[in-house]
Amino acid sequence: MKVSDLGEFGLIARLRAGPSELDDGRLLVGPGDDAAVWRSGDEYVIATTDTMVAGPHFLPDKVAWRDVGWKALATNISDIAAMGGEPAFALVTLCLPADALVEAIDELYAGLRDCSAAFGVTIAGGDIVSSPVFAITIALNGTAALDGNGVPLLLKRDTAAAGDLIAVSGPLGGSAGGLRLLLAGQQLTSEGERSLIDRHMRPLPRLDAGHAAIASGVRCGMDISDGLVQDLGHICHASRFGAELSLGRVPVEPGLAERFPEDAAMLAATGGEDYELLLVGDEATLAGTSAALVTPLVIVGRMVEGDARVRVLREDGTEVALPGAGWDHLAAAPS
Amino acid sequence: MKVSDLGEFGLIARLRAGPSELDDGRLLVGPGDDAAVWRSGDEYVIATTDTMVAGPHFLPDKVAWRDVGWKALATNISDIAAMGGEPAFALVTLCLPADALVEAIDELYAGLRDCSAAFGVTIAGGDIVSSPVFAITIALNGTAALDGNGVPLLLKRDTAAAGDLIAVSGPLGGSAGGLRLLLAGQQLTSEGERSLIDRHMRPLPRLDAGHAAIASGVRCGMDISDGLVQDLGHICHASRFGAELSLGRVPVEPGLAERFPEDAAMLAATGGEDYELLLVGDEATLAGTSAALVTPLVIVGRMVEGDARVRVLREDGTEVALPGAGWDHLAAAPS
Repeated sequence: MKVSDLGEFGLIARLRAGPSELDDGRLLVGPGDDAAVWRSGDEYVIATTDTMVAGPHFLPDKVAWRDVGWKALATNISDIAAMGGEPAFALVTLCLPADALVEAIDELYAGLRDCSAAFGVTIAGGDIVSSPVFAITIALNGTAALDGNGVPLLLKRDTAAAGDLIAVSGPLGGSAGGLRLLLAGQQLTSEGERSLIDRHMRPLPRLDAGHAAIASGVRCGMDISDGLVQDLGHICHASRFGAELSLGRVPVEPGLAERFPEDAAMLAATGGEDYELLLVGDEATLAGTSAALVTPLVIVGRMVEGDARVRVLREDGTEVALPGAGWDHLAAAPS
Repeated sequence: MKVSDLGEFGLIARLRAGPSELDDGRLLVGPGDDAAVWRSGDEYVIATTDTMVAGPHFLPDKVAWRDVGWKALATNISDIAAMGGEPAFALVTLCLPADALVEAIDELYAGLRDCSAAFGVTIAGGDIVSSPVFAITIALNGTAALDGNGVPLLLKRDTAAAGDLIAVSGPLGGSAGGLRLLLAGQQLTSEGERSLIDRHMRPLPRLDAGHAAIASGVRCGMDISDGLVQDLGHICHASRFGAELSLGRVPVEPGLAERFPEDAAMLAATGGEDYELLLVGDEATLAGTSAALVTPLVIVGRMVEGDARVRVLREDGTEVALPGAGWDHLAAAPS
């Protein structure tokens, strides 16, 4: 059997089903959330890793290396934001073909440094290896906020409850729109088009929203990397509740509605890599988060009793059929 | 300019020469040692990452996937041993071609689990992505031993002094011999040959030697991954002293001398990936380390005043010319 037959989530489930790992009680969050969390002395480490491979994850002839460097780190920072934590130290692994240009790597590192400076990350080390294909892997360590008793405060996937509201931290679909423009390869004319490319290549991890959520008492959340519907499905699966998503309420990236008016709403609901946060909690708690943010959260749905799946609803309450929305990293194409 | 023109160490130096990273005083050891070390609350984290790419790092048609899994984690554990630390949590990134076989990944994970169980590591999370070429990257976190005042005790590269003795924790060259057998592709007949393959694919990180060194007061060391001469050169460079290595004293893997008697000594001095420890300290301190080990350290040379380079000496005191011994990850072949 090939891994593409099993798919990313099938393979993860298979590997997780193996013999249980050694654990001496320090591991608080293992595989299956945005990041792992373990106790280290009197702190809790939040650790994540993300890879960008030339080809599957970016097209070297269509994007700037500086943007690749930014995005490689930004996606990792987003995983820390998704846990409500604070990033700190990064290890950078470069897999380089022998004919890779030093100037390209200089630009890549400049983008890494732009991002590390913007979000307070220190590049502490890494590895450089030879490879037939370019890839960059970052392992990022951060720390969790603690309550007065030293207990870590986290945004997890398995803490949603029926009746909770579902909120997102900002407009969606911009990254998917930017990818579509890059793939089409047309000359970009409008500022709106350039902003979509920026949403795709220069994501801004929402550490602010993660911290505000933690401070106001939200305890369920993740970042939107695979698409809102699919990511909300992960929360349903982990929390064992259903979700009703109101398609008309999903905030759409302004440049997207302008450039792709016909399917902007669907791109916002299913397009990946916006790196906004998806937060789940009761109305008052989410209102507390909004009050601390420049742009308030947008309520897009509600957790419900029943099957652990997402129902995407039109304004009239009928369900939108979405055959396998979202991104599977091992499938041949978005499935 | 291509990265292969600059080489691995040239590129690392170039990237490290960029604008200094953010640092709030928590980073104790940054790029340039076996692993990074930073303060996390009342502990010190030791963090490292290592990658194996199909092709440059192993030949999928010549080795068992289970051994690839073992080696991928073992090399990371060796970096923690090289700092004198204790490993704890690993993040595993798999870059998988769509036609990778699930059975191969099962075997890979079985090898990972063999190794994690043998050395007390918990697999806490990771990432699975699509890639044209198979690669496995592991990011491993551990902790440093602390003295009574909470100060971390580490084996570093920049702490050698003139007059210090140079020791290795075990026989060398076995991995290089095993690689040579694999590349030759012959049928293996003797137990000695199989033991060389094992040295190449199932390295045993010397956590025991790292801990014994720390406990007896050794403060300079690293693991032998690129070859003794080259790795000793890193200590010379970081410590700003020279080294004299007695070629005749370098312990040679028994199976190697049997199979490749003509150049076993040179393979032991320059072959990579044995993952024994290289320790530098005064005679009494190193004797203290030996006393705590099943097999005592072997003294192979001495740090000296002068140029920060390694002189490899014959028994008569003449120098052996070694044009670029050791492994450069970005060069087209061992340089």
